[in-house]
Amino acid sequence: MVQTKPKDPEKSGRLFGLGVGPGDPELITVKALRRLRESEVIAYYAGPRKRGNALTSIESWLREDQQRLPLIYPVTGRPPPPPFDYEGTMRAFYDASAERVAEHLRAGRDVAALCEGDPLFYGSFMYLHDRLADRFETEVVPGVCSVVASASVLQTPLVYRDQTLLVLAGTLPEADLERMLANAQAAAIMKLGSNFEKVRRVIMALGLGDRALYVERATMTNEQIRPLAEVDPTQVPYFSMILVPGERWQAA
Amino acid sequence: MVQTKPKDPEKSGRLFGLGVGPGDPELITVKALRRLRESEVIAYYAGPRKRGNALTSIESWLREDQQRLPLIYPVTGRPPPPPFDYEGTMRAFYDASAERVAEHLRAGRDVAALCEGDPLFYGSFMYLHDRLADRFETEVVPGVCSVVASASVLQTPLVYRDQTLLVLAGTLPEADLERMLANAQAAAIMKLGSNFEKVRRVIMALGLGDRALYVERATMTNEQIRPLAEVDPTQVPYFSMILVPGERWQAA
Repeated sequence: MVQTKPKDPEKSGRLFGLGVGPGDPELITVKALRRLRESEVIAYYAGPRKRGNALTSIESWLREDQQRLPLIYPVTGRPPPPPFDYEGTMRAFYDASAERVAEHLRAGRDVAALCEGDPLFYGSFMYLHDRLADRFETEVVPGVCSVVASASVLQTPLVYRDQTLLVLAGTLPEADLERMLANAQAAAIMKLGSNFEKVRRVIMALGLGDRALYVERATMTNEQIRPLAEVDPTQVPYFSMILVPGERWQAA
Repeated sequence: MVQTKPKDPEKSGRLFGLGVGPGDPELITVKALRRLRESEVIAYYAGPRKRGNALTSIESWLREDQQRLPLIYPVTGRPPPPPFDYEGTMRAFYDASAERVAEHLRAGRDVAALCEGDPLFYGSFMYLHDRLADRFETEVVPGVCSVVASASVLQTPLVYRDQTLLVLAGTLPEADLERMLANAQAAAIMKLGSNFEKVRRVIMALGLGDRALYVERATMTNEQIRPLAEVDPTQVPYFSMILVPGERWQAA
């Protein structure tokens, strides 16, 4: 068992950005687990009245004496339309979150900021990093991202040799999705949720329906794999993914 | 300590495709480490007269009684020109490798096939998977891939919100690289080696020189981070990467 190091009032704490992986508690790295156990404060994002997937996936590793610091999103899901100032609201939220973390760091406490998947790959940790990394000792521990986790549960090789992989968000306009996917050798489409129907339409229009694979909550206990045609668009969670694997290399 | 399960002559062994991460031995996942320790046979690819990065990065976790099964590439680096039959040579090599692994599986022994990074993301495990997964119980444990590992050591957020990430191989023709990178919001360019000078030329021509970051052997003990302009093209290893991170989101 790793001991928390003694507090030194002269020294700021360290900020650890920890990729906790895609959901399965065992898909955290040995290094992230060590840093997690060394940290006095565990910071994590969550939606209002929710626990947050990052905390859920690693909670079994925590001790009682580790302080939880929930950072509760003011808005989740599709942003409300103007005049609601979505960007301003989020900026103020990330500013305030960074200050709450900074308070602990200034007091000499190490803070582990949890992030589903990898911290720097579409991770909410990036907004803490952008605000704190030049002021405090910061270490980012990379994690297993949802793209490769999805490939593993779908049991499909993703990219061979010199194939190109395109990672894109389902939130993009339909015309952009169509243009980009038309030229992709392999693709991973993230952030589906309410964008699923649009994405599926593009995939079918491009004749990729036979190659595309769908999974939701890959590696979590409630993981679901379904044929693309059978997915109910009204029930698609944010943590879902469509993969279009690259064509099998002929030597295979 | 996990015990190897007793052999059952009626039952084939399990094939584990284990992502061992980018190089740092601690960047293996808890799950891959558990499967590694459960396996009687440890299969890994390596170049002629080399130990292989995958084995090197996890060797400290192995026991003496675990059998090593090296799979030695007949060719590494840039393929010899025709009339050398590169594809045929590699196909025969992967066929033979799969049979060597299958022998152990048929004898009831669990085999861990090691793979740097993630097994299904440009990983050599894919060629075993394509040949064995429909014949033997197979489990793929995803790993931390070099793209996110590079971002962590370069301390740069990689993609924000709905930005698109393009992952491509430096082996592509210069015109293809130029066309693809011209439209990319964020990019990771892998497989540099002898392709480095060509890739750097494209990056400079597109005005991306200020954004592009270079790292070699990210998270390994001999990791090097250098300004792109100062890299000696004759000394670039295969395990190197150029990242072009997405533009920082304004809320940051």
